[in-house]
Amino acid sequence: MELMYKGKTKDVYKLENELYLLKFKDDVTGENGVFDPGANTVGLTIDGAGLAGLKLTSFFYSKLNELNVPTHYIDANFEEATMTVKPATVFGKGLEVICRFKAVGSFLRRYGAYVNEGQELNAFVEVTIKDDERLDPPISEDALAMLNILTHEEYAILKERTIEISKFVASELEKKGLTLYDIKLEFGRDSKTGEILLIDEISGGNMRAYKGDTYIAPLELERIMLSE
Amino acid sequence: MELMYKGKTKDVYKLENELYLLKFKDDVTGENGVFDPGANTVGLTIDGAGLAGLKLTSFFYSKLNELNVPTHYIDANFEEATMTVKPATVFGKGLEVICRFKAVGSFLRRYGAYVNEGQELNAFVEVTIKDDERLDPPISEDALAMLNILTHEEYAILKERTIEISKFVASELEKKGLTLYDIKLEFGRDSKTGEILLIDEISGGNMRAYKGDTYIAPLELERIMLSE
Repeated sequence: MELMYKGKTKDVYKLENELYLLKFKDDVTGENGVFDPGANTVGLTIDGAGLAGLKLTSFFYSKLNELNVPTHYIDANFEEATMTVKPATVFGKGLEVICRFKAVGSFLRRYGAYVNEGQELNAFVEVTIKDDERLDPPISEDALAMLNILTHEEYAILKERTIEISKFVASELEKKGLTLYDIKLEFGRDSKTGEILLIDEISGGNMRAYKGDTYIAPLELERIMLSE
Repeated sequence: MELMYKGKTKDVYKLENELYLLKFKDDVTGENGVFDPGANTVGLTIDGAGLAGLKLTSFFYSKLNELNVPTHYIDANFEEATMTVKPATVFGKGLEVICRFKAVGSFLRRYGAYVNEGQELNAFVEVTIKDDERLDPPISEDALAMLNILTHEEYAILKERTIEISKFVASELEKKGLTLYDIKLEFGRDSKTGEILLIDEISGGNMRAYKGDTYIAPLELERIMLSE
């Protein structure tokens, strides 16, 4: 099994059957020892964070596959904290597609002159480029097209699918009395068919979930979501 | 004559005939004593900068008015370094609409992972919000619409008009052997008719002009453009 890439929170291995294996680690993003899903650095290590992220990802992706939303997910092995996925290529050097239900985080930092903290944003979609050095700048549909990262047609698909997936996640959280403030998704092209797939993960590490006014940390989110 | 607003490079007075007077100052934007059209602070004072900016603005806006491009410009008084304009209200708390012909400045800082310095950008348009505290963040068409700053229809007009005006400015520079790298425009709504107007100024202070590989500073640009 060949190690292809060491990521901040996951390592990627190539399997012999043309599939890939994602190994979930206990490292989470943050700064100065405080978890922050929008951060670009590993802020801390939390025992069990990798497995919790995998379990929640498996929970959401299994359901999405059943709903015929194309994802890279095939199956998960909780003992090994690994997930088997279809190979996919990212757009450009990787994009993050963010769906916002409430104004917090970088949106509030950028547009605080026009929105109040926590203001309703009605599944607003925006794209940032994955570029740690340049602090993941937001990028417009026109710029994505001009830089040959996404066509306008692909942008429309990503936007529609992001809203669909994010509303699905929000509704799953709602069943447990939680509110989704924002969520960060990643997409890629199926290496074989070119089809646009949801890739990466959906876990506490890439969303902000609240119970009333209280932020729910990733491990607690996994516990609540996966409890009977 | 009532002082309405003290700006970084211009002061605004209300006239008795419902028009406004812009007084051009010798302060220019920059940092640490170096001129930078994208900066948010007054970096230095250059004797004659205000008048030079006014003369160049008058040159471009007179021509744009002749071409039936709606602007706020009525006339200029070079002795007083003032310009008479129609009243207009800005979009939100003010937007900057940037047209880029070559990748430099904040575009290069944001998207340097995808473009080389000086790369051709073919009149690419992007919008930033005027917000010194938040460093004038870029904002997407969708965010402008959601935050009730611009409708999609207004965005389309601004984009089209920005390309038209910027190409006109580029062609005027080209007549003098200069190349326009980028330019920053401002628009507003005519306070009486609601019509979208080009407001503010067009001078060396809001564009980057080059002769070959050499950047042409604002005063030099004015000298070249207005010489016979």
